Amino acid sequence: MSFVDLPARSLPPHDAVVVASPHVAPTATVEARRGTFDATLTLRHGGLQTVRIAWELAGPAGAPVALVAGGISAHRHVAANAQFPEAGWAGDLVGGGRTLDPAHTRVLGFDYVGADGRVDVPIDTADQADAVAVLLDLLGIARLQAFVGYSYGALVGLQFAVRHPARVAQLVAVSGAHRAHPYAAAWRALQRKAVALGQLQCADVQGLSLARQFAMLSYRTPEEFEERFDAPPEVSNGRVRVAAEDYLDAAGARFVARTPVNAWLRLSESIDLHRIDPAQVQVPTLVVAVEGDRLVPLSDSVALVEGLGPHGQLRVLRSPYGHDAFLKETDRIDGILAGALRQPGDPA
Amino acid sequence: MSFVDLPARSLPPHDAVVVASPHVAPTATVEARRGTFDATLTLRHGGLQTVRIAWELAGPAGAPVALVAGGISAHRHVAANAQFPEAGWAGDLVGGGRTLDPAHTRVLGFDYVGADGRVDVPIDTADQADAVAVLLDLLGIARLQAFVGYSYGALVGLQFAVRHPARVAQLVAVSGAHRAHPYAAAWRALQRKAVALGQLQCADVQGLSLARQFAMLSYRTPEEFEERFDAPPEVSNGRVRVAAEDYLDAAGARFVARTPVNAWLRLSESIDLHRIDPAQVQVPTLVVAVEGDRLVPLSDSVALVEGLGPHGQLRVLRSPYGHDAFLKETDRIDGILAGALRQPGDPA
Repeated sequence: MSFVDLPARSLPPHDAVVVASPHVAPTATVEARRGTFDATLTLRHGGLQTVRIAWELAGPAGAPVALVAGGISAHRHVAANAQFPEAGWAGDLVGGGRTLDPAHTRVLGFDYVGADGRVDVPIDTADQADAVAVLLDLLGIARLQAFVGYSYGALVGLQFAVRHPARVAQLVAVSGAHRAHPYAAAWRALQRKAVALGQLQCADVQGLSLARQFAMLSYRTPEEFEERFDAPPEVSNGRVRVAAEDYLDAAGARFVARTPVNAWLRLSESIDLHRIDPAQVQVPTLVVAVEGDRLVPLSDSVALVEGLGPHGQLRVLRSPYGHDAFLKETDRIDGILAGALRQPGDPA
Repeated sequence: MSFVDLPARSLPPHDAVVVASPHVAPTATVEARRGTFDATLTLRHGGLQTVRIAWELAGPAGAPVALVAGGISAHRHVAANAQFPEAGWAGDLVGGGRTLDPAHTRVLGFDYVGADGRVDVPIDTADQADAVAVLLDLLGIARLQAFVGYSYGALVGLQFAVRHPARVAQLVAVSGAHRAHPYAAAWRALQRKAVALGQLQCADVQGLSLARQFAMLSYRTPEEFEERFDAPPEVSNGRVRVAAEDYLDAAGARFVARTPVNAWLRLSESIDLHRIDPAQVQVPTLVVAVEGDRLVPLSDSVALVEGLGPHGQLRVLRSPYGHDAFLKETDRIDGILAGALRQPGDPA
């Protein structure tokens, strides 16, 4: 295993428009460091593989550690800090005034195994969980105060709780459940077919763009589209173009500019491979569900919490942003984290 | 305008598995005839075009006429009869014992303008409505007793009521509203992009198959997929394959075998072009909505009925089949038709 400190690299912003919340102050004085290392892991479906794990840790030495993990497009740079001032993917959820404030808590982020496009085998959420354990070993972190996972991060958090229960005190799983819903899995499988159709004829980028556009429909809701795109379609050059197409085209173009095709394919598959037995989770777990999430129906979150028994609690949000609510309803999410993570008697 | 009687042609079955309901007796003794003719229409977006209109009329001479129109994949052969014994696309909705029984009512079906793939310009639902009026002229039918439209057929029915109100006594619009919902329109636009991606390199059939598979997700519901496809995914040849993929592949293959690419593209566009002002509908109209329909949300059906004012009534079904409920919940649909079409004092 080698340990390499890399210079800050430019990280493109997440799809969501980053509008800093007035509550989130930049943590300019917070110390942060980054690194990458190679680890050899036995992947559940891919056998022995050397994978590169990239991480970032922001906050004062000795403070409790919260791992924050996002969707398959997220990465190690969770929020801006003195060393790495560019916007992070969760800049409205992590910062001064937030429950997760790197002035008091060390915030750990990492790039998912496969996110660099170099691991071209099926990747399970169990593999991600094992990579986190190796990362904690490397950083000398015996136990996380919290694993806060959103979307794919919630799946990885659940696997981590099953496989490494001694290493996490509390799990918050937002918009993710114990298995992929069969309808959502079919939706993703068709997105992968769009990529395959593009690859047929070296149109990989067009295929990935189309896949992303179909994915956008699953991340958002009809309510939002009705609000934003109710204009009649246009007929131009003999073709009908509906009101949402400019938005979707732009979302596709932004995505392909920053995403290796293999990385997306393998992480998309990984969501569908995910399956845990909730009864095997013994870590206190708060499940946060969004009513109207088209990928993770409320019924699955309820089934997860039932399976968690005494270890599970459920909070439900209603949001027109559906699966993407965690990127949009950041004040409400922070309020939920405050209740979950700041228990009386807990370390701050 | 020329009038041509054609021999029965083989019509492939609709996607839905046709399982004859015990209530639906074959109408073997019912007389039926078919024809096609060329008409010159001024299309709303496509200008002057010569289109071929294919029709089938089953039932006793002189009986009242009900036009039955289905989704964009439907056609003139609504139900089996003595002349044309193959299954029709609405064989469980039309027959002996049903409200629409060709022993008592003449049932008229037609192929949508553009369904033959020969009209490669934007086609509006207003164009379809005008084609119906021309067809009624040709057949000497002054007025329909009822226009019963499902899905796209409901849109055409609404346009017909707006444009030719003297020619229809009653409209039943199932799973269709006054405009395409913006989210559903985006979903269809992406399906058309899948076809365009295939067409980039002469992979038209793969593109259309993928488009159909994405459409299937909009026709059905997560509840049905959960019931049918909850098995874990398989990993084979290094790729993840989810449980619904065999079903979706088969649906795509069946569809491309019977659908010209241009026909599908133009009729898909046509749904998105559809927009009427409900206040302009003066014909008594029963709107039938399905709770859980992912293409036509209940809120749009409610808005339509509100706009119809004294001319509108609403019936709501709950079905795990979503938008496709009219092909599956045929007993319940027939019950609704019975209430709507068999008013005391009306002609049988």
